[in-house]
Amino acid sequence: MAIRAAVAGASGYAGGEVLRLLLGHPEVRIGALTANSNAGQRLGALQPHLPQLADRVLEPTGAGTLAGHDVVFLALPHGQSAAVADELGDDVLVIDCGADFRLKDAGAWERFYGTAHAGTWPYGLPELPGARKALGGTRRIAVPGCYPTAVSLALFPAYAASLAEPEAVIVAASGTSGAGKAAKTHLLGSEVMGSMSPYGVGGGHRHTPEMAQNLSAVAGEPVTVSFTPTLAPMPRGILATCSAKARPGVTAQGVRAAYEKAFQDEPFVRLLPEGQWPATAHVNGSNAVNVQVALDEAAGRIVAVSAIDNLTKGTAGGAVQSMNIALGLPEELGLPYTGVAP
Amino acid sequence: MAIRAAVAGASGYAGGEVLRLLLGHPEVRIGALTANSNAGQRLGALQPHLPQLADRVLEPTGAGTLAGHDVVFLALPHGQSAAVADELGDDVLVIDCGADFRLKDAGAWERFYGTAHAGTWPYGLPELPGARKALGGTRRIAVPGCYPTAVSLALFPAYAASLAEPEAVIVAASGTSGAGKAAKTHLLGSEVMGSMSPYGVGGGHRHTPEMAQNLSAVAGEPVTVSFTPTLAPMPRGILATCSAKARPGVTAQGVRAAYEKAFQDEPFVRLLPEGQWPATAHVNGSNAVNVQVALDEAAGRIVAVSAIDNLTKGTAGGAVQSMNIALGLPEELGLPYTGVAP
Amino acid sequence: MAIRAAVAGASGYAGGEVLRLLLGHPEVRIGALTANSNAGQRLGALQPHLPQLADRVLEPTGAGTLAGHDVVFLALPHGQSAAVADELGDDVLVIDCGADFRLKDAGAWERFYGTAHAGTWPYGLPELPGARKALGGTRRIAVPGCYPTAVSLALFPAYAASLAEPEAVIVAASGTSGAGKAAKTHLLGSEVMGSMSPYGVGGGHRHTPEMAQNLSAVAGEPVTVSFTPTLAPMPRGILATCSAKARPGVTAQGVRAAYEKAFQDEPFVRLLPEGQWPATAHVNGSNAVNVQVALDEAAGRIVAVSAIDNLTKGTAGGAVQSMNIALGLPEELGLPYTGVAP
Amino acid sequence: MAIRAAVAGASGYAGGEVLRLLLGHPEVRIGALTANSNAGQRLGALQPHLPQLADRVLEPTGAGTLAGHDVVFLALPHGQSAAVADELGDDVLVIDCGADFRLKDAGAWERFYGTAHAGTWPYGLPELPGARKALGGTRRIAVPGCYPTAVSLALFPAYAASLAEPEAVIVAASGTSGAGKAAKTHLLGSEVMGSMSPYGVGGGHRHTPEMAQNLSAVAGEPVTVSFTPTLAPMPRGILATCSAKARPGVTAQGVRAAYEKAFQDEPFVRLLPEGQWPATAHVNGSNAVNVQVALDEAAGRIVAVSAIDNLTKGTAGGAVQSMNIALGLPEELGLPYTGVAP
Repeated sequence: MAIRAAVAGASGYAGGEVLRLLLGHPEVRIGALTANSNAGQRLGALQPHLPQLADRVLEPTGAGTLAGHDVVFLALPHGQSAAVADELGDDVLVIDCGADFRLKDAGAWERFYGTAHAGTWPYGLPELPGARKALGGTRRIAVPGCYPTAVSLALFPAYAASLAEPEAVIVAASGTSGAGKAAKTHLLGSEVMGSMSPYGVGGGHRHTPEMAQNLSAVAGEPVTVSFTPTLAPMPRGILATCSAKARPGVTAQGVRAAYEKAFQDEPFVRLLPEGQWPATAHVNGSNAVNVQVALDEAAGRIVAVSAIDNLTKGTAGGAVQSMNIALGLPEELGLPYTGVAP
Repeated sequence: MAIRAAVAGASGYAGGEVLRLLLGHPEVRIGALTANSNAGQRLGALQPHLPQLADRVLEPTGAGTLAGHDVVFLALPHGQSAAVADELGDDVLVIDCGADFRLKDAGAWERFYGTAHAGTWPYGLPELPGARKALGGTRRIAVPGCYPTAVSLALFPAYAASLAEPEAVIVAASGTSGAGKAAKTHLLGSEVMGSMSPYGVGGGHRHTPEMAQNLSAVAGEPVTVSFTPTLAPMPRGILATCSAKARPGVTAQGVRAAYEKAFQDEPFVRLLPEGQWPATAHVNGSNAVNVQVALDEAAGRIVAVSAIDNLTKGTAGGAVQSMNIALGLPEELGLPYTGVAP
Repeated sequence: MAIRAAVAGASGYAGGEVLRLLLGHPEVRIGALTANSNAGQRLGALQPHLPQLADRVLEPTGAGTLAGHDVVFLALPHGQSAAVADELGDDVLVIDCGADFRLKDAGAWERFYGTAHAGTWPYGLPELPGARKALGGTRRIAVPGCYPTAVSLALFPAYAASLAEPEAVIVAASGTSGAGKAAKTHLLGSEVMGSMSPYGVGGGHRHTPEMAQNLSAVAGEPVTVSFTPTLAPMPRGILATCSAKARPGVTAQGVRAAYEKAFQDEPFVRLLPEGQWPATAHVNGSNAVNVQVALDEAAGRIVAVSAIDNLTKGTAGGAVQSMNIALGLPEELGLPYTGVAP
Repeated sequence: MAIRAAVAGASGYAGGEVLRLLLGHPEVRIGALTANSNAGQRLGALQPHLPQLADRVLEPTGAGTLAGHDVVFLALPHGQSAAVADELGDDVLVIDCGADFRLKDAGAWERFYGTAHAGTWPYGLPELPGARKALGGTRRIAVPGCYPTAVSLALFPAYAASLAEPEAVIVAASGTSGAGKAAKTHLLGSEVMGSMSPYGVGGGHRHTPEMAQNLSAVAGEPVTVSFTPTLAPMPRGILATCSAKARPGVTAQGVRAAYEKAFQDEPFVRLLPEGQWPATAHVNGSNAVNVQVALDEAAGRIVAVSAIDNLTKGTAGGAVQSMNIALGLPEELGLPYTGVAP
């Protein structure tokens, strides 16, 4: 029997990507599509790349329109998910693509988001130690942020194997879709093409405590994160360059072995052959994560790089992968693993 | 029982796209992968976006490696297909992504390609009048050129309904993958990013006689084609802007009706709602063709615009769609219809 | 003695480019910088590429702030120039980068712009026959539209030499800066990168009557224009592909000779050597216009292609070039002729 | 009297940029242009953005063609500069855009370049402590690498003021022109557009010891450098994100003050107003360096970001700036300070 899924926030980039993936999922039937300011419009005018849904009309987001589904994906601005989820009932699988339920530390939430903490849901990054188990059978999923997905997967094997000092330095480049579909001058094509620029420098980006939470949990001790996101002239993709000081005695072979072990059974994470480095184009439109790692002996640092598609594995793909686990479906069902390249 | 398919020229862009689509095709099992200069290499080093095939090793192209398959896709330089096809036998479905068997007029072939004409195979553009029938059960398919695919679909309804004078003017922009994967200075990223440039201006592009052939067949009279291709700063996509003088008495409603009729049962061609125009990003990675048409009353011209992905519908998707027809499978089987956007 | 110049609309793309050029002009001193909604802001926050002016504060646009200058550049929304110009007095050189005073035909103006016609000023495209003379000593200049600049320069030699039938077909690709700096969803980097799309198809673009006006004047008879603009994934540049049926007896040599004659004394227009075609990157940031032309004998059409930088020669460069003429300065003074490439 | 300058390697990107700048330099007359494999070709076919030089024919590189000039710019592959310089004589100003004479440590040279060390010339980064003085009157200049230019300027103030621990972590994104004009598959537009990828990860990039040399000299103690370069989908520009642990007691105000002091008299380096971050587009085509710095108190790190144009300040602009100093001309003469943006 088909799973009936609704998508709240269907006119944005995250919602559009959820729909793209659900259209390819053999067990899902797409139900209500809702939006806020775009309610009443045809989806074909807003998401012209989804022709199968072109004649669907967006309904207003609310418990009334979202009720009656097995799964509800929320792709809403921060702060709106709790109220919607409360009304949907405990037997509906609610998958929040927003940040509201990602952090465990209420103080960190309040410092970075400036509002009261809504709570914590099972975290939709199955590759993290313990995460897959927590997702089995759950009816609430907090989808990770796109940067924390890329960064956590690049670095957790080093911390799981106690190879790295607990101070991570991360510089990541993201495609512009990570900034959303709201019209802003600094996101115009004229501004972003041909340009690289950082933002949220110095510890201000909201994904920072989420990365620290993930890495600290794996390390078993607090890991500080220096995180600098940069905007790259491409629509999609995140390249995360992550490093930390190697603990004494760490060898290149030891690093390689730790990463091989961490990813050996993962369906979507590929540790590339030695010497081959990730590129975002190779995972474009795919749920794949490409990872490579090296030990810089002169600088004494482990350097790990990951590439993901911020909208697929970084948002909608991670959401569907977690949905599959929660519903007892094969984890890879309906998820693209090939990239659209060149 | 699975169809066993081989791909000759698996290291290039066309071959890579055929493989991407075959990986998503439920009835196909991928057999031999061959190349010329890249034979002996792992596919993972050449097509890193196809992780499922990363450990496959490319074999040399030849009858020996290609024998024993139900379908053989040829993505070879011009002039090499005939010899390979001859050795494969008549019961193997040979699908040539190259130009060798597209043209019926040996004189046009010789003028534009400078070699002896190899012959003509059923033409893999099912949407053209009569083409779908010719593909049924065939064991030889000539996949159309990427530009002729976009242009023929944009203009044939006007000629089928006798709305347009037989002089078509076409300017098309193509992503750089249309120029192939051979390393050339003028195709470097440094050269193409931020730049639009024409090439083959004045009637010299080899796709010109193919467009004329298609449009003339539909019109029932010779149609001349003025074709200017331009290179656009994007990896994929063709936007074809096509126009012709409207015949006396032609109305906007008449034009719209002709296009609606032409595409009403087509699974991959979408005549967009009035006022909405195609964009290549919306069909990125998809076999869809987006078309719109207008009558410019002041200039007296019908203007039709189509957008395709040059590698998907323009090459590999058209090939797989035609394969499905030839083998009696559902025409849409395994073909993406959603675009990867933004 | 320095010329004192003010710029109204200094926070937009056209105004920013005027300032970039004036900073390099040895005879100009930059006076007031004005804006509407951005008045009160530091220019450094809005035009970070102009460090010399970073600490200037934008004043509100009006006769009060613009008075007391020798030259006033207007980079304002359509419809606002007449009132400002009236207040500035007849001895001030007013250079309107907007459309208000470009068209001679009040009916065409009203059809395309929907408002009352403000009048006609000398037209700032010195390369057109007669235009340079009309600019000498004038105190009012209508800077041409960016597309009409590219198109008129590509085609007028053919009409001046009576080589072409009076029906021009034009498809042009523009960088996104041509659409301005206002935040709109369809101009987001996420939407435009990797995408080509047309707009204003079927005769609706406001630059159409301006092209027809220019070509008709040269031809000595009405020339109809079929114009399709397309948006290209690059910040700057216009590539205009223009064609018209060749008159009987026209030869390739005759076409070449007409273009050589038309441009032989032009400081900024380059007819490229035969076989070399324009690319927008080569005129990036430059006032140069690169042109090439061919006769397609099979299709019977003259095909001319031009490349300009839409913000430089297409707007601000054309404005400064015309200013130089009006003020009796050397025409090339302060204008870049090299492109910033790659 | 004009300075007569020759450019060896005039067909590549570095040579082309030297020529672009020299064309705008009021004291320089361009003499011989030489190349290796491209000797005999018209420059117009190779550098179409330099129309003033289009009809110049490239001569073979050698002492014969380069003799008789006041200044010779070398834009040659590594290892060729010493022989050319030796033949030119001590009174000719030889400016090497290559790496041969940058490093002082012969062992580091041999480890990273694999050849015998040629020597050390005065280093063409005038902003470094002591460098300007060493350039005055010299007849040999080693132009810094593009990455070391961006990185050294971002970090040296922190080390000059003893604010940072001697372990720098750097991730930099470069436009593709940094990889040169030789045709390579991985640099094709189809490969680089829409993609970010790292290379030389783990300490292997040849610019690493040059950065360490510069920072160590300023710090007065050995500074280790962890450097990861990434290739960004843009033709030009470097964004360098650099960080190091703050020494105990360092404050945000102290960091700001150190940077203000370091750059207060620099003509080309701009410490942006607090809260404004660099973007490569803003220095496109310009010799400007935009820098910003922050103290991440939670992570305990100083984070500095710089943006340059890799071909201008990163290569040719740095070369001309150093030439001006060596010849006693005003340091800013002929150098662009505005960026070409958007």
